[in-house]
Amino acid sequence: MSVQQRKNRAVIIVNYEFCSRTEPLESRKGAKREADKLFKALSKLNYAVKLYYDQAAKEIEEIYRQESREEHGDCFVSILSSHGEEGAIYDCWGELVKLTRIFQMLSPQRCPVLAGKPKIFFIQACRGNVTDPGVWVETDSGRPPADSFSHYLSIPDSTAVMFACSPGYSAFLNPLGSMFLQTLLEFLEGDERHLELARLMTRISWKVALHCEAKGPYHGDKEMPCFVTNMVREVYPFSTQTTETGRL
Amino acid sequence: MSVQQRKNRAVIIVNYEFCSRTEPLESRKGAKREADKLFKALSKLNYAVKLYYDQAAKEIEEIYRQESREEHGDCFVSILSSHGEEGAIYDCWGELVKLTRIFQMLSPQRCPVLAGKPKIFFIQACRGNVTDPGVWVETDSGRPPADSFSHYLSIPDSTAVMFACSPGYSAFLNPLGSMFLQTLLEFLEGDERHLELARLMTRISWKVALHCEAKGPYHGDKEMPCFVTNMVREVYPFSTQTTETGRL
Repeated sequence: MSVQQRKNRAVIIVNYEFCSRTEPLESRKGAKREADKLFKALSKLNYAVKLYYDQAAKEIEEIYRQESREEHGDCFVSILSSHGEEGAIYDCWGELVKLTRIFQMLSPQRCPVLAGKPKIFFIQACRGNVTDPGVWVETDSGRPPADSFSHYLSIPDSTAVMFACSPGYSAFLNPLGSMFLQTLLEFLEGDERHLELARLMTRISWKVALHCEAKGPYHGDKEMPCFVTNMVREVYPFSTQTTETGRL
Repeated sequence: MSVQQRKNRAVIIVNYEFCSRTEPLESRKGAKREADKLFKALSKLNYAVKLYYDQAAKEIEEIYRQESREEHGDCFVSILSSHGEEGAIYDCWGELVKLTRIFQMLSPQRCPVLAGKPKIFFIQACRGNVTDPGVWVETDSGRPPADSFSHYLSIPDSTAVMFACSPGYSAFLNPLGSMFLQTLLEFLEGDERHLELARLMTRISWKVALHCEAKGPYHGDKEMPCFVTNMVREVYPFSTQTTETGRL
């Protein structure tokens, strides 16, 4: 990467204390410290990172509206960590924010500077609840899905979205952090950061699905990440050693 | 691949003539010939392929129920080509078949022999309609989506699903075939077949998005494939040269 090149930008939003007007949402212990570590890891990888705690829906929208007006480097990364349900995350007031709204604020129409550039999202939030909804102490919980269908939102061009868990399922969090973002953090700090994005995401799925296990009341429970992508080329968003973007 | 190894299995279902009881669905010219070519290409790659034309919903379910009882090799591939809408394809009678139902028939609970083995789906079907629904002659059309949300269905373990188009959009088909499956065919017959699955799918997205254009009344219109995956390791489903499955 040449020194003249504009820095890539990243946005981390973590909601960990909730003043819910409608839903009783537990504090998300460990989520803040985890986000702080991700801030440092991305900064070390030469990202200009903005980190926000406990944001309301309008503030979240404003963050991405502001991002859409910035000058960007080769790619944009965003990490969202909160309670959630399928297709949405909770803001700090317990209101749902549709992921569609967030993604679309970086669409080519609204953010021409990121058109054709990779936009990468990591979402640590529940997408439903397959067990008893009365005992959501240790998980990023939400309401159970309406049926076996689940939603995902249209994504703009050149976008990849990785979810901590499968549609309809809970994403685990404990005071040491979440299985999903801890794995991302480990890989950003390790040699895995040099992997092409789809390979990196596949490896995160592997680690979370096969090597992580919930503790506490969910002891032994598993989590299966998945990602959706319409990327048209191979990208190396976290490798500072190579600027190769894959020969296609 | 050792000669003792069991053959991988593939299922192709193409609906191209419709006797719709409710929706007037156009014949899908070119879809049958395209499916025949995919049958040959997969057979050459040492797949045991089953090809079905113009199936009713119950027949489609029976096909996968039967598959769930078979002995399988290292992975399973399925290609579905029909009219569709978000989360579902039309059977030959114009009835919708939810993709969830199909995927779940190969879940570990119902098909233990494929547990942990890659299950790969390619779906050539509309997922909505962003233009005038009155002129659906050349596309695999469906009803417009209810809102900007779109659905996707829960997928079982080790599954990748690639869609011809983005949620809410039409998938193009003309008498020479579909942009999407023609590209898959080209790559299965070319050196690209040796690529790891996520790379292969990324390359299909690249080719379809950047090098294909609708002809006829939709001249110039584009199609943006995308895929969703929860694969936990790298797989090479179409490479007969290597048995490497990716060191993870």
